[in-house]
Amino acid sequence: MPILNKDMQVCISLAARPSNLGTRFHNFLYDELGLNFIYKAFTTSDLVGAVAGVRALGIRGCSVSMPFKEDIIKLVDAMLPSAQAIESVNTVVNDNGVLTASNTDYQAILDLIQMHSLNRRDSVLVRGSGGMAKAVVAAFNQAGFENLTVLARNEVRGKALASRYGFQFSDDALFEAAVSEFDILVNVTPLGMTGEDQQALAFPELFIESARVVFDVVAFPSDTPLISLGQQRGKKVISGAEVSALQAALQFETYTGVQLTEDQISRAARFSRET
Amino acid sequence: MPILNKDMQVCISLAARPSNLGTRFHNFLYDELGLNFIYKAFTTSDLVGAVAGVRALGIRGCSVSMPFKEDIIKLVDAMLPSAQAIESVNTVVNDNGVLTASNTDYQAILDLIQMHSLNRRDSVLVRGSGGMAKAVVAAFNQAGFENLTVLARNEVRGKALASRYGFQFSDDALFEAAVSEFDILVNVTPLGMTGEDQQALAFPELFIESARVVFDVVAFPSDTPLISLGQQRGKKVISGAEVSALQAALQFETYTGVQLTEDQISRAARFSRET
Repeated sequence: MPILNKDMQVCISLAARPSNLGTRFHNFLYDELGLNFIYKAFTTSDLVGAVAGVRALGIRGCSVSMPFKEDIIKLVDAMLPSAQAIESVNTVVNDNGVLTASNTDYQAILDLIQMHSLNRRDSVLVRGSGGMAKAVVAAFNQAGFENLTVLARNEVRGKALASRYGFQFSDDALFEAAVSEFDILVNVTPLGMTGEDQQALAFPELFIESARVVFDVVAFPSDTPLISLGQQRGKKVISGAEVSALQAALQFETYTGVQLTEDQISRAARFSRET
Repeated sequence: MPILNKDMQVCISLAARPSNLGTRFHNFLYDELGLNFIYKAFTTSDLVGAVAGVRALGIRGCSVSMPFKEDIIKLVDAMLPSAQAIESVNTVVNDNGVLTASNTDYQAILDLIQMHSLNRRDSVLVRGSGGMAKAVVAAFNQAGFENLTVLARNEVRGKALASRYGFQFSDDALFEAAVSEFDILVNVTPLGMTGEDQQALAFPELFIESARVVFDVVAFPSDTPLISLGQQRGKKVISGAEVSALQAALQFETYTGVQLTEDQISRAARFSRET
């Protein structure tokens, strides 16, 4: 890194529990591309004050994680369709004081569906009903999928999410079925994530056997039990590391205007995961 | 510089026209000392929002320049005597949400008076009546000087500043005197500073001849006509570069708790002045 200077543009992130991923991803590429930017993760207990600071200090970009993705909506000036469609924001760009919100998670899922040539006639089972599940279900809907089931423990949220697009809802009882009819399995719960659920397999083995595609949004670790078993069984797998890298790349492009190559994205993503 | 990380503490500055001095001074020493800090200059047209951001983002330190030195008083939680005495703030430190204001310009002037062993029985002529002049006059008063004259074009401000400490006031007519009785001359105006007044000599030659000490707070350039002529005539000189470096060092110590050596201060100051 060069020594900092007064003219650097600053991008930040806001999260209850910041990780180093964004800070390392963005700064790696600023350095490599010689952009006069810095990126730094922050936490806050005062979102209103933090957004006031973004405006007053002319901070160029602000990535938004849990638990601020919905609360920030009323603090921005404009919502792009990616955020509007799911009422959830993960990216705010500041153009001379005008804050525009978008959701690169939604866009990244949509891009991954296309990059991996998923077939929109396939049946999809999405497990989860949180903010990220909203992005996933909206993206599959946008990509033209019509046969999708939302499986969630939280019946109210799950049914609301499914019915918004005319999809099915199911509770855990579905897992007791003797057969599985789903081509694409998508995990959008913390099952398999670092922590107490790290050993948990998000779908029964039977379901994985019957599927063609296994898609996990869990980014830490990226080799969740679901991804590992999917690989073992020769399924097409899409990992949370891909989602994480692609959404960060889309944020990078939003903040800097620079379009990244696949090679740049994958090297920055690798660097962001070291240590 | 190491690659940035989420745990770095952030210090900033707020000024209408930021320079690179602070950003280079502080980051040079963070790097050399291996402190997990970054420093970045900002400008703002919304001081209230900027201070809200300092609080909400947990920014550790905030250096304050023109025109915010007085307006920020009502936005902090506590004023140390260095700022209280002159009702002017140039440093804010954030201890877990409690913002404490001080003035390291005042402290730096006081320290320089001692470091250069100025004699408190000497007569002093201070030219200027702005915010920095308040710091200078208060520091000379604090150091025990009793024979001091404030010379200013702005009679209202000049008289108020002088009378606050029982000092004399004079206007420019003093310069028409055929003799000078002042031992110490202090320039606290923009005369000699980069810009339209760069060639201007802050005191008549006759006054410089008669003085023993020539003190200029102009930091850019540090070799003002006053300083150059003082050196030519073999006077003791104290330059604005010394004030600037010392006040920055005091801010550094306030933010990081690390006490700097003279060598560290002078190398950081030199680095900060390189393009």
